[in-house]
Amino acid sequence: MEFSISQIAAMLGGEVTGDGSEKIHMLAKIQDARKGQIAFLSNPKYEQFIYTTNASAVIVKNDFQARKNISCALIRVDDPYSSFTTLLEEYHKLISFQKTGIEQPSFIGENSITGSNIYRGAFSYIGSNVTIGDNVKIYPQVFIGDNAIIGDNTILHPNVKLYAGTRVGANCVIHAGTVIGSDGFGFAPQEDGTYKTIPQLGNVLIEDNVTIGANSTIDCATLMGDSTIIRKGVKMDNLIQVAHNVEIGSNTVIAAQTGISGSTKIGENCVIAGQVGIAGHLIIASNTSVGAQAGIAKSIKDEGQKLIGYPVFDVKQYFRSYAVFKQLPDLHYRLRQLEKLTGVSSSVSDISQNGSN
Amino acid sequence: MEFSISQIAAMLGGEVTGDGSEKIHMLAKIQDARKGQIAFLSNPKYEQFIYTTNASAVIVKNDFQARKNISCALIRVDDPYSSFTTLLEEYHKLISFQKTGIEQPSFIGENSITGSNIYRGAFSYIGSNVTIGDNVKIYPQVFIGDNAIIGDNTILHPNVKLYAGTRVGANCVIHAGTVIGSDGFGFAPQEDGTYKTIPQLGNVLIEDNVTIGANSTIDCATLMGDSTIIRKGVKMDNLIQVAHNVEIGSNTVIAAQTGISGSTKIGENCVIAGQVGIAGHLIIASNTSVGAQAGIAKSIKDEGQKLIGYPVFDVKQYFRSYAVFKQLPDLHYRLRQLEKLTGVSSSVSDISQNGSN
Amino acid sequence: MEFSISQIAAMLGGEVTGDGSEKIHMLAKIQDARKGQIAFLSNPKYEQFIYTTNASAVIVKNDFQARKNISCALIRVDDPYSSFTTLLEEYHKLISFQKTGIEQPSFIGENSITGSNIYRGAFSYIGSNVTIGDNVKIYPQVFIGDNAIIGDNTILHPNVKLYAGTRVGANCVIHAGTVIGSDGFGFAPQEDGTYKTIPQLGNVLIEDNVTIGANSTIDCATLMGDSTIIRKGVKMDNLIQVAHNVEIGSNTVIAAQTGISGSTKIGENCVIAGQVGIAGHLIIASNTSVGAQAGIAKSIKDEGQKLIGYPVFDVKQYFRSYAVFKQLPDLHYRLRQLEKLTGVSSSVSDISQNGSN
Repeated sequence: MEFSISQIAAMLGGEVTGDGSEKIHMLAKIQDARKGQIAFLSNPKYEQFIYTTNASAVIVKNDFQARKNISCALIRVDDPYSSFTTLLEEYHKLISFQKTGIEQPSFIGENSITGSNIYRGAFSYIGSNVTIGDNVKIYPQVFIGDNAIIGDNTILHPNVKLYAGTRVGANCVIHAGTVIGSDGFGFAPQEDGTYKTIPQLGNVLIEDNVTIGANSTIDCATLMGDSTIIRKGVKMDNLIQVAHNVEIGSNTVIAAQTGISGSTKIGENCVIAGQVGIAGHLIIASNTSVGAQAGIAKSIKDEGQKLIGYPVFDVKQYFRSYAVFKQLPDLHYRLRQLEKLTGVSSSVSDISQNGSN
Repeated sequence: MEFSISQIAAMLGGEVTGDGSEKIHMLAKIQDARKGQIAFLSNPKYEQFIYTTNASAVIVKNDFQARKNISCALIRVDDPYSSFTTLLEEYHKLISFQKTGIEQPSFIGENSITGSNIYRGAFSYIGSNVTIGDNVKIYPQVFIGDNAIIGDNTILHPNVKLYAGTRVGANCVIHAGTVIGSDGFGFAPQEDGTYKTIPQLGNVLIEDNVTIGANSTIDCATLMGDSTIIRKGVKMDNLIQVAHNVEIGSNTVIAAQTGISGSTKIGENCVIAGQVGIAGHLIIASNTSVGAQAGIAKSIKDEGQKLIGYPVFDVKQYFRSYAVFKQLPDLHYRLRQLEKLTGVSSSVSDISQNGSN
Repeated sequence: MEFSISQIAAMLGGEVTGDGSEKIHMLAKIQDARKGQIAFLSNPKYEQFIYTTNASAVIVKNDFQARKNISCALIRVDDPYSSFTTLLEEYHKLISFQKTGIEQPSFIGENSITGSNIYRGAFSYIGSNVTIGDNVKIYPQVFIGDNAIIGDNTILHPNVKLYAGTRVGANCVIHAGTVIGSDGFGFAPQEDGTYKTIPQLGNVLIEDNVTIGANSTIDCATLMGDSTIIRKGVKMDNLIQVAHNVEIGSNTVIAAQTGISGSTKIGENCVIAGQVGIAGHLIIASNTSVGAQAGIAKSIKDEGQKLIGYPVFDVKQYFRSYAVFKQLPDLHYRLRQLEKLTGVSSSVSDISQNGSN
């Protein structure tokens, strides 16, 4: 990034106070900023820093009135925080998309097609019959198997591995080390105790605007023609496991280290916390919210529930039960006191053998 | 795959009705199949599709009698589902083993020997003194450290990493990104609060017919000459952690994201669900079944148990206890009602400080 | 390793009995050792093996008196176990640091500087403006992004991925497949149900003497100039997730598959077991000990606690409560018996609807 203060002001629809010709090359917090950097002032409790900052420019509100001398340029806008966020996004795009061209050595198989303005890092591998859209960034050591298709503007970070036949939409970001399309975990038990591998011949289909974190794994579907599907707008964190034939609905968000077993279908706009486990062949209603480390063993039919525990139930009820759980030794003591008083003393050993409940 | 219908019928020991000369290049479901593809009909409720399918051939039962006109060829066999599965397996082998030859650039160190008919993908790295059997498939970006030994017919998917000295048997499949032989987690606490690294000098030994999923990690044994051992026929899913000096018995199956701590020995034919944690230095009896997210803190001596919870106990008893757990606030209320009625009211605060139980 | 027995004795300050000229090239257990190898005898119950071992030399106590004929050389020292450990460490350093030089093809960008005596494996990638210290070992297929800085003596195992701007201190070891600096999981919900990506512009800072296991992930900080920080001496196992803006204090140890959510600060000298989950924006006091699979949802203010459960509380109290949890069906039965006897029977359905507690 290398824009003048005036150019940035024009981008933001703001007005410059001071020297607009200085060049800006980075964004920073007002208390840390140095020469050549731009910061913002939104919260009045940070106002003190504007009088001492080394930033070359600070974005302020239209009606900002300095109470002391200020040495930096100001850019006056309606909403400094929102303007700064816009700059951050532009900066992020710039650094994300600055890489272009083909570094050598890199490998591309027969009949593979790449769009315009792409980056292919050194030691990246593209198999045969692969189709890659425009502006795609393929970082070093990425593996793209035969017959894969990648949409426009998608970024594959270092060493992402796409098995043969994987389809990734447009505007996706997949972080380093993630594996897409590995074999589903399918084994048929044999009479001699061994297991026979069930061939996994489907693929993985990832729609547009999906983000997947680092070192996650998504298995392919079992049957040819079937897909494990990640719908548009899904956001997945690091170290997540998605088994064969799973479908994750649009705009569902999943935190790190969660695992989803085979053939489960998760609805739209769910929020699933970290280290959650979901059993196979379930249907999870849209707008379900699942707390950290929860285990889901049955389908969730009603939308909008907040669940936790193993197996899950309502989050408020869980914490109420858990509060009593912490007092259980005391409850047990009190129960025995009552039994003594009343002379009733059920024989524990007999009862538990009867499995009475 | 490119066989005529007659050739496929011969493979399956079936009989062709119709034109056997057409070429088949893919398998599909009867409702989705297109020209050049083969499907099967086993369940009568799918019979309708055989009259409209675009498949070039459908595998049917010997005694199948068409009730309408059929445009595709038929292959008549005893058991269409089983025959189709056989074809799937053959197809899977074909696509798994179709890769051969050496892609460039790839790296091989001194004194390393490779068998016949192997595939070495681009950017794969083979160290020194490595021995690799026949028909081994080494996908791109695989790392094989010095002195490793790989048996016949084993497939290492992209970017599998085998540390120096790792031994992998025959007919194994290791999925993308998995690390075998990383250092065990061994640190000796020092008086000043720091930790000293305990050198990890053993290796990992994987026997024949083992499958390991993607992005899993298996640490090497601590002492030189010792091995972390995965016995024959073990099937492991994705993102599993196996610590140093663990031994996993033959034909044990482990689902995704489970972790096994150092020096624990797991018996044969166990079934361990996902996200299970097993503490170190334990012995788990053969034929143990462990439910999802369970935690095992003590050795399991009796074979054939089904366990869950943290720490684990019998799965049926767990769910009975959990059913009461969900009602604990109600139980607590009822206990207080009884206390009021009987005039007994043990002082909670006193008791819990005494830790009475 | 290739030293004579006399040279090893000199290193250990020991005295040779027998022929000191034979060459030693490996360490082994006394019962397994072969010619050219060295073993030790410390525990008297292993004494039998010294009379039959094929080792070329055995390290024994100063006052060791043979009761039978011995064919190997002896090295007499004060503490044979400690001397053997010293040898193990020296051996480990030798094999860790024996790799030097640059294997081809490997990639290095503009303006990057590497120190003396480094190893750059084949297919390793070093971006632009990278600074790498002396004696650094960069194994094959490692990725080091632009502007990264790596301290002296650090080892990056195969396929470690450092995003642009990552800083790693001296004497660190990072195991295969680990990702450092991936984007934090930050998404702002929009009115239409989609999520907007919050740019992640900070980095990761790893101080000296840190070890990180295989296939772990550490996200970068959100804001430019901020860092996710791993303090000196931290030891982390495999498959661990560290989210954006986390700080882990010096000499804290974390076992496999644990996850730490965004902006949480963990104190010094903590011991965190495997599969633990820690929520975001918490402060965990120094010297906290957390049991396996625990979930921490609130800050831990007092140092030195031992915690477990979800959410965590005192480990002893947890196991006391859990002992009663296992008997809950029995307790429930006994409560009902008391209700029958006393004629009190609170209506469960009414009560639970009132949410009484």
